[in-house]
Amino acid sequence: MPAPPPADPPAGAPPVAVVLLSGGLDSATCLAVAQAEGFAVHALSFRYGQRHAGEVDAAHALAARAGVARHVVADVDLRVFGGSALTTDDLAVPKDRDAAAMADGAIPVTYVPARNTIFLSYALAMAETAGARDVFVGVNALDYSGYPDCRPAYLAAFEQMANLATRAGVEALDRGEVAVRIRAPLLHLAKAEIIRLGTTLGVDYAATTSCYDPDITGAACGHCDACQLRRRGFVEAGVDDPTRYTAGA
Amino acid sequence: MPAPPPADPPAGAPPVAVVLLSGGLDSATCLAVAQAEGFAVHALSFRYGQRHAGEVDAAHALAARAGVARHVVADVDLRVFGGSALTTDDLAVPKDRDAAAMADGAIPVTYVPARNTIFLSYALAMAETAGARDVFVGVNALDYSGYPDCRPAYLAAFEQMANLATRAGVEALDRGEVAVRIRAPLLHLAKAEIIRLGTTLGVDYAATTSCYDPDITGAACGHCDACQLRRRGFVEAGVDDPTRYTAGA
Repeated sequence: MPAPPPADPPAGAPPVAVVLLSGGLDSATCLAVAQAEGFAVHALSFRYGQRHAGEVDAAHALAARAGVARHVVADVDLRVFGGSALTTDDLAVPKDRDAAAMADGAIPVTYVPARNTIFLSYALAMAETAGARDVFVGVNALDYSGYPDCRPAYLAAFEQMANLATRAGVEALDRGEVAVRIRAPLLHLAKAEIIRLGTTLGVDYAATTSCYDPDITGAACGHCDACQLRRRGFVEAGVDDPTRYTAGA
Repeated sequence: MPAPPPADPPAGAPPVAVVLLSGGLDSATCLAVAQAEGFAVHALSFRYGQRHAGEVDAAHALAARAGVARHVVADVDLRVFGGSALTTDDLAVPKDRDAAAMADGAIPVTYVPARNTIFLSYALAMAETAGARDVFVGVNALDYSGYPDCRPAYLAAFEQMANLATRAGVEALDRGEVAVRIRAPLLHLAKAEIIRLGTTLGVDYAATTSCYDPDITGAACGHCDACQLRRRGFVEAGVDDPTRYTAGA
């Protein structure tokens, strides 16, 4: 008895895309791009012990506001991990690093081992279940703050692997097509360009969160790498920054 | 502040390998192969809502008996999944399929979407954290029962992706080396060859479980694909089958 094929959308129904939705500025823009392309979005977020759990609340708000077809928050078990400032209190989030330090190519302490690989693997499972060909991820090769798994070569290799992971993938490759496409529409955009694009598409950036170290009210610290990149992006984009910063930030 | 590098083993300490340990016959053999090669094993198992949760008990017993350096059981959230007989009661496990049906290339109903991709992604995270280069997985291209993510091309693509996912990987590729090796020592072995190999290495197959549909005492059904492959393997290997089958199986 063969496995049931993924459900095809009814005739005339929009194609389905899976969108990785962290609750940050990039993924919110990515979601808007997928919807602008006409996809019915199945959004996927993760609870992985991140200090800034406000991310998940932001993802919920963004998904509801965008009217996605489905939003799943998956729990990722951290017992295999260790050593990231985003998931342990033993390491401090770096603050006020200058642009040179952020661009030095060193992997920052906020790196979570294999995080994007795990997230994309879950997205691949969701895509297979939902009959989606397109998986959107808001990674960015310019303002990527040194993360190794945000590079074009990595994404291409993941897509290649994903297409070999399923029978539909192998059959499609034989036809010179792909069954899974890893879509990273922000890959070559600067933060300011992302903000301009999202603003055009109506993204409510006030509902997004980027800070690695917000205060207990959820206000952004203004000084971690993520805050600095975001803040500079709004300035360079000439768009009012709706971020709620902690007092004095 | 760069991320702390993975801890190198102390001088003279054995290299670390991550071994995916399901509790089945293949992964138990794989663990024995890794130890025979001199690796200190960090074993990784998953609780993913499988019906045969006795797998996890078997993995614990095997890890303890083998004296592994570390054993982690990670919970994998199923909310992104659906449609597999191993994770829902809505689909029946197929029984008494003949060899032709098992070999017809169709993906069986017991396929869990992207399962090996997710498992290998966690293993990659664990390897990065533990400073391991080798990740052992007991997949098998001969008796693989139609799973798409047990093929050599898939494993090669995963390894390529894994080496692009980390800075150490990219640096190693530049030197013509690899930072992560996906090791599948059983890939081209028939079930009987695996059983002979494991018997030589002292694997206690009585502690392993393969059945997709055991009874409440944990006894094997004897008729699902996994039971049939296993049973025939012991016969062909000329090794006494220590499996506890349900009455009448």
